[in-house]
Amino acid sequence: MTDDLQQYLVPQEPYYRAVDDEVSLFEAAYAAKMPVMLKGPTGCGKTRFVEYMAWKLGKPLVTVACNEDMTASDLVGRYLLDADGTRWQDGPLTFAARHGAICYLDEIVEARQDTTVVIHPLTDNRRVLPLEKKGELLRAHEDFHLVISYNPGYQSLMKDLKQSTKQRFGALDFSYPKHGVEVEIVAHEAGVDSAAADKLVSIAERARNLKGHGLDEGISTRMLIHAGSLMARGIAAPAACEMALVSPITDDPDMRDALDAAVGTYF
Amino acid sequence: MTDDLQQYLVPQEPYYRAVDDEVSLFEAAYAAKMPVMLKGPTGCGKTRFVEYMAWKLGKPLVTVACNEDMTASDLVGRYLLDADGTRWQDGPLTFAARHGAICYLDEIVEARQDTTVVIHPLTDNRRVLPLEKKGELLRAHEDFHLVISYNPGYQSLMKDLKQSTKQRFGALDFSYPKHGVEVEIVAHEAGVDSAAADKLVSIAERARNLKGHGLDEGISTRMLIHAGSLMARGIAAPAACEMALVSPITDDPDMRDALDAAVGTYF
Amino acid sequence: MTDDLQQYLVPQEPYYRAVDDEVSLFEAAYAAKMPVMLKGPTGCGKTRFVEYMAWKLGKPLVTVACNEDMTASDLVGRYLLDADGTRWQDGPLTFAARHGAICYLDEIVEARQDTTVVIHPLTDNRRVLPLEKKGELLRAHEDFHLVISYNPGYQSLMKDLKQSTKQRFGALDFSYPKHGVEVEIVAHEAGVDSAAADKLVSIAERARNLKGHGLDEGISTRMLIHAGSLMARGIAAPAACEMALVSPITDDPDMRDALDAAVGTYF
Amino acid sequence: MTDDLQQYLVPQEPYYRAVDDEVSLFEAAYAAKMPVMLKGPTGCGKTRFVEYMAWKLGKPLVTVACNEDMTASDLVGRYLLDADGTRWQDGPLTFAARHGAICYLDEIVEARQDTTVVIHPLTDNRRVLPLEKKGELLRAHEDFHLVISYNPGYQSLMKDLKQSTKQRFGALDFSYPKHGVEVEIVAHEAGVDSAAADKLVSIAERARNLKGHGLDEGISTRMLIHAGSLMARGIAAPAACEMALVSPITDDPDMRDALDAAVGTYF
Amino acid sequence: MTDDLQQYLVPQEPYYRAVDDEVSLFEAAYAAKMPVMLKGPTGCGKTRFVEYMAWKLGKPLVTVACNEDMTASDLVGRYLLDADGTRWQDGPLTFAARHGAICYLDEIVEARQDTTVVIHPLTDNRRVLPLEKKGELLRAHEDFHLVISYNPGYQSLMKDLKQSTKQRFGALDFSYPKHGVEVEIVAHEAGVDSAAADKLVSIAERARNLKGHGLDEGISTRMLIHAGSLMARGIAAPAACEMALVSPITDDPDMRDALDAAVGTYF
Amino acid sequence: MTDDLQQYLVPQEPYYRAVDDEVSLFEAAYAAKMPVMLKGPTGCGKTRFVEYMAWKLGKPLVTVACNEDMTASDLVGRYLLDADGTRWQDGPLTFAARHGAICYLDEIVEARQDTTVVIHPLTDNRRVLPLEKKGELLRAHEDFHLVISYNPGYQSLMKDLKQSTKQRFGALDFSYPKHGVEVEIVAHEAGVDSAAADKLVSIAERARNLKGHGLDEGISTRMLIHAGSLMARGIAAPAACEMALVSPITDDPDMRDALDAAVGTYF
Repeated sequence: MTDDLQQYLVPQEPYYRAVDDEVSLFEAAYAAKMPVMLKGPTGCGKTRFVEYMAWKLGKPLVTVACNEDMTASDLVGRYLLDADGTRWQDGPLTFAARHGAICYLDEIVEARQDTTVVIHPLTDNRRVLPLEKKGELLRAHEDFHLVISYNPGYQSLMKDLKQSTKQRFGALDFSYPKHGVEVEIVAHEAGVDSAAADKLVSIAERARNLKGHGLDEGISTRMLIHAGSLMARGIAAPAACEMALVSPITDDPDMRDALDAAVGTYF
Repeated sequence: MTDDLQQYLVPQEPYYRAVDDEVSLFEAAYAAKMPVMLKGPTGCGKTRFVEYMAWKLGKPLVTVACNEDMTASDLVGRYLLDADGTRWQDGPLTFAARHGAICYLDEIVEARQDTTVVIHPLTDNRRVLPLEKKGELLRAHEDFHLVISYNPGYQSLMKDLKQSTKQRFGALDFSYPKHGVEVEIVAHEAGVDSAAADKLVSIAERARNLKGHGLDEGISTRMLIHAGSLMARGIAAPAACEMALVSPITDDPDMRDALDAAVGTYF
Repeated sequence: MTDDLQQYLVPQEPYYRAVDDEVSLFEAAYAAKMPVMLKGPTGCGKTRFVEYMAWKLGKPLVTVACNEDMTASDLVGRYLLDADGTRWQDGPLTFAARHGAICYLDEIVEARQDTTVVIHPLTDNRRVLPLEKKGELLRAHEDFHLVISYNPGYQSLMKDLKQSTKQRFGALDFSYPKHGVEVEIVAHEAGVDSAAADKLVSIAERARNLKGHGLDEGISTRMLIHAGSLMARGIAAPAACEMALVSPITDDPDMRDALDAAVGTYF
Repeated sequence: MTDDLQQYLVPQEPYYRAVDDEVSLFEAAYAAKMPVMLKGPTGCGKTRFVEYMAWKLGKPLVTVACNEDMTASDLVGRYLLDADGTRWQDGPLTFAARHGAICYLDEIVEARQDTTVVIHPLTDNRRVLPLEKKGELLRAHEDFHLVISYNPGYQSLMKDLKQSTKQRFGALDFSYPKHGVEVEIVAHEAGVDSAAADKLVSIAERARNLKGHGLDEGISTRMLIHAGSLMARGIAAPAACEMALVSPITDDPDMRDALDAAVGTYF
Repeated sequence: MTDDLQQYLVPQEPYYRAVDDEVSLFEAAYAAKMPVMLKGPTGCGKTRFVEYMAWKLGKPLVTVACNEDMTASDLVGRYLLDADGTRWQDGPLTFAARHGAICYLDEIVEARQDTTVVIHPLTDNRRVLPLEKKGELLRAHEDFHLVISYNPGYQSLMKDLKQSTKQRFGALDFSYPKHGVEVEIVAHEAGVDSAAADKLVSIAERARNLKGHGLDEGISTRMLIHAGSLMARGIAAPAACEMALVSPITDDPDMRDALDAAVGTYF
Repeated sequence: MTDDLQQYLVPQEPYYRAVDDEVSLFEAAYAAKMPVMLKGPTGCGKTRFVEYMAWKLGKPLVTVACNEDMTASDLVGRYLLDADGTRWQDGPLTFAARHGAICYLDEIVEARQDTTVVIHPLTDNRRVLPLEKKGELLRAHEDFHLVISYNPGYQSLMKDLKQSTKQRFGALDFSYPKHGVEVEIVAHEAGVDSAAADKLVSIAERARNLKGHGLDEGISTRMLIHAGSLMARGIAAPAACEMALVSPITDDPDMRDALDAAVGTYF
């Protein structure tokens, strides 16, 4: 394994608490060379899961944060000008396909609908990537695997995956972990005791009921870890919750009152 | 045949089950140098068919996944900067026209209209491609053939082929194979027995009736193969169907219930 | 005549059946240095006519398939980077104006309205082309002639030629040839007998009545030649008509029935 | 005077029939260094007038056909890559300002509203042009003069000159010449006798009454010269009028009938 | 002071008639390093004022005519390719900040709202300009001063300065000068006697009452100077007013009549 | 510490009056490596606060004024052409992440969403920045910290941070300081006595009540310092207030009257 590739190995086991049978489903999909789509809200652990799987399978992980201005060339590669003329530089997708890494396209729905078309020939039985600018037809490495994440809450007329893209993937649904599991995660990650973590999770559960009633998204596990981390550094719980749970997600006075009330119930 | 060209030969006979007289029609169109348009929904076998025909005719196949950001230069070619100045690089369309390959423009309707206009002089009796930037008028190789695919379900005001493009093609209509044929395909491709394949096809047939009543597209043959592949790797049928057939195509709770019910009927 | 220019000569007399006095009108316009606009629907022979006239006048023909993404530089030319710095490369319009070719801008209405402005100084008595980027004021060659094609059926608010462009051209109206002429053309070009050609033309005439009542365009002469070519290669007439006449132009079930009925009447 | 400049001198006196006091007004504006705007419909002689004035004043004339894709750099100049690095290339506006030519921006309203802003510092008493990319503040040559043309008929919300641009110009209104003058022009330019020219002008006068009642613009003097030129080459008057006067400007059957009737009255 | 800088010194005292206390307010703002915004209609003397102040303060003046296509790089600078590789070229804003000039951004509201953000760090107490592409944090020269102009009449939803930009400036309001002052200016600048100048100013005052009732802007002082200049060169007053005052600003027949009547009252 | 980095150290203690517990909260967030979002209106001291914290923590501060035209490459870096070919240049975000600076993205909501997506992998526990064009996976320096500012008053459908971005930050709310604190700030910064500063603050407090009733934003502390600075240079209070407080923020006559009345009450 080259140094270039090695840097993409996940260096140590990421902390991951399995919720369901997602680990074995992912392993079967990997074995069947079936591309995988991770669905679920912000901050519920999709990225952590793919890191865990990459570690478990011992494969390098190339992550791309998709965005609207990403061109096909950003994924596939381009010519760079060198002292000796132009030199081809593989993009992250090509790099992963060529060397056999897991390629994780995070928040794929942010990419322009048609840029995602470049992954099509990699996601059916052909498993090829035509590098038209280079005149090369790359056949994907045996170990190459494609994973995308997708937040259904963002679906809109303008931004949705095309059916012809969706149908190429097996999908795993993610949501926030169950109470006990989430308490365990928050306590472990933030460095607070279970009692404090329990209160934080309870606040989040209240706030998640407000989703769609004034909040675009609920309070995520990641935010709870933020609040806990501040508390672990001596910040009082109410101030920590204000900074980490309430202020980031809303400026609506009524919503703030509702969230503050939820905080006040527990701290 | 040069190495560059050779890599585009389909290495072995692709598995293809003919549905109708599409093979002989394609052969006649190839002999008549009439460009061909493959019409039909996602995942019903259009790409597999063109691979099969390329193999059968013994011609190299250059595939381009069309997308909105593809420029005419991406098809035709461009100058690259080299150690000795600029060097012309044929695009995939020019490459195919020059050397006599089959050029397959997949999902052409995704390309910008300009991109489609460049194929016009290649699709009438002139069979030329003006490389304006190079000052060359390329006359197409005897063996060159142009094939495009087109999903009528995507037709919209914004994205449709122009009449002046459509009229240049003979068209072959594709749809999902008949029950028996599809069972055979799924069993062969996924490695499951006929009984399991039969159940999967039956689920798909139910789901296809929901198209237009809440589903944008039906469950494709490709998805059935996905489900079967998971089952062949030991995943229980309901979990395999959830991951491969239900979760990828809808987030609507009612649709999920309807699809889960269809799965439950057979497994 | 240089090699560069020579390749644009039409190598042999194109098959062309004159419909009216269009040949002598074009010749007078050429003599008067009056730019010519060819108007008419898709596939009725405009491109063939201009090829025939170029052959008849013995002048090279430079054809440009206009499109929405074509910039003024694509027509006029640009600097390319070379081993010795930048080098000017004439675009097709400049090339034709400099060396005395006929420049045919096909489907000009597809070009951005304002890109067409660059042809203005070539289309009045000045007959010059300012190459601003090069600092050159090119005076057109004696033999240079400008021809554009234009499909009035595509006229829309967004895409129409400006009056200040239209007024610079003499216009020739084209439509489908009369019955006898079209039969002759189809028989000659497709290699079928007159009886078969007669039936194909009759089908087209029925279909052309549907234009504006569900069809955007009628069945063109080119499509009839396609159908005839398949028949000449042994495909049964109904299958040939389905592939070449019906399937390419509509997916509407009612329209398909109407067209199939027209086919069924004759075959 | 350098060769570069010399090529922009109008080589011989253009045929121009003055309609009013426009010649002396232009001369006074030139003496007062007041930029001039020529207003009027398509094909009424604005371009011919500015060529005549350039010839009369003995100054080079640099014409720019404005269009939507023209950038400020197209007017002002840019760096080009050379064998010895980058080299600055004056754009047409800079060239004219530096060397003392008349710069004619034709159809300025086509340029992006904000691109026209670059002419502002040249059109007030500063008469400078900041070449920001070059770090040069160019003071205009004594003989430099700026002229723009403008068709009020095109005014629209999207495309109009800004007041802050308009106020920098003196304006001359142009329209079609009076009957006798126009007959004289058509006869002289097309090479037909006065009787034929008189009939052509009479047809145009009828058609001009249809402007705003189905026609966007009337028949221009240029079009009459076209028709006359065809007649002078032996084309029958009705066919010449059809090709040069009727067919270019309308596809509406009623308008065609009205124009054909006007032609029929005289020929 | 380098030659590059020297060319931006205003060579001689510009003719400027102070209207109010604007000169001392500008001097205090300059001393306090408070950026200044000049507000007022087209052609009322904002540009002349900043030239006068630059002359009075003895500082170089770098003027930028803002426009929609101006990028942040046009203001800040960019790398140019040179014989020895890339070379950084300061943009006008950077040039002024580095060497201590007054930078005048004319019609700032034309620039894209967000391009103006680059001036923010220069307009608070930091007085820095981060040159991100160069990796330099430029601290502005002691003498650097930023002035912008702004025409409130153009304010619209699409084009207005952001509050966070406006709040960084002290603002000076400009309007047309009082009668006596304006007569003095017109007589001085156009070279006509006071009687004629008085009449021209009276016409303008009438026309300014039409602003908002059919005219977008009133007749500016600059236009009066235009009319006077034509008269000083022997053009009759009515023709001079038509060319300089009426024709440039309206094509509406009623407005033309109203303005012609105003002219007729005095000449 | 390299010179490149050293220039970003805040050279001396910025004047900052703490309002609440924001200093200790920021310190805890820094220790917890939790990215921080500063929320609040224009000119209330967010930028000053981050400068103060950078000084207090002794860390270099890299500030980026975000804008709509900023690309991901502007943040992350790009290849530059050098005498020896291309050379990678870190963008400000990469520079800060690599060397351990505080990176402050000012007015992040102005940036295109894509630009904001690139910060995602730096803002969760991975703390990496994939430099796809360079093929490097940068792990952030121990000292790296990310701070963004955000004005909730600008929130709109088109321009708001995505939930998946917001949830990655702890947020601190800022508003104008309390009366006594603001008086102290204005007196200190403008160089006026407390009495004058008190009057200026009182005027601002009145004006802030008009926010949402005709004013988009209230008068900021920065504007009061402007007014005071003019007064300290001998400008009469009413003229100073007009220039610094009233004229910059509104052209509405009623609002002007209301603000003038507020000024008149105190001076």
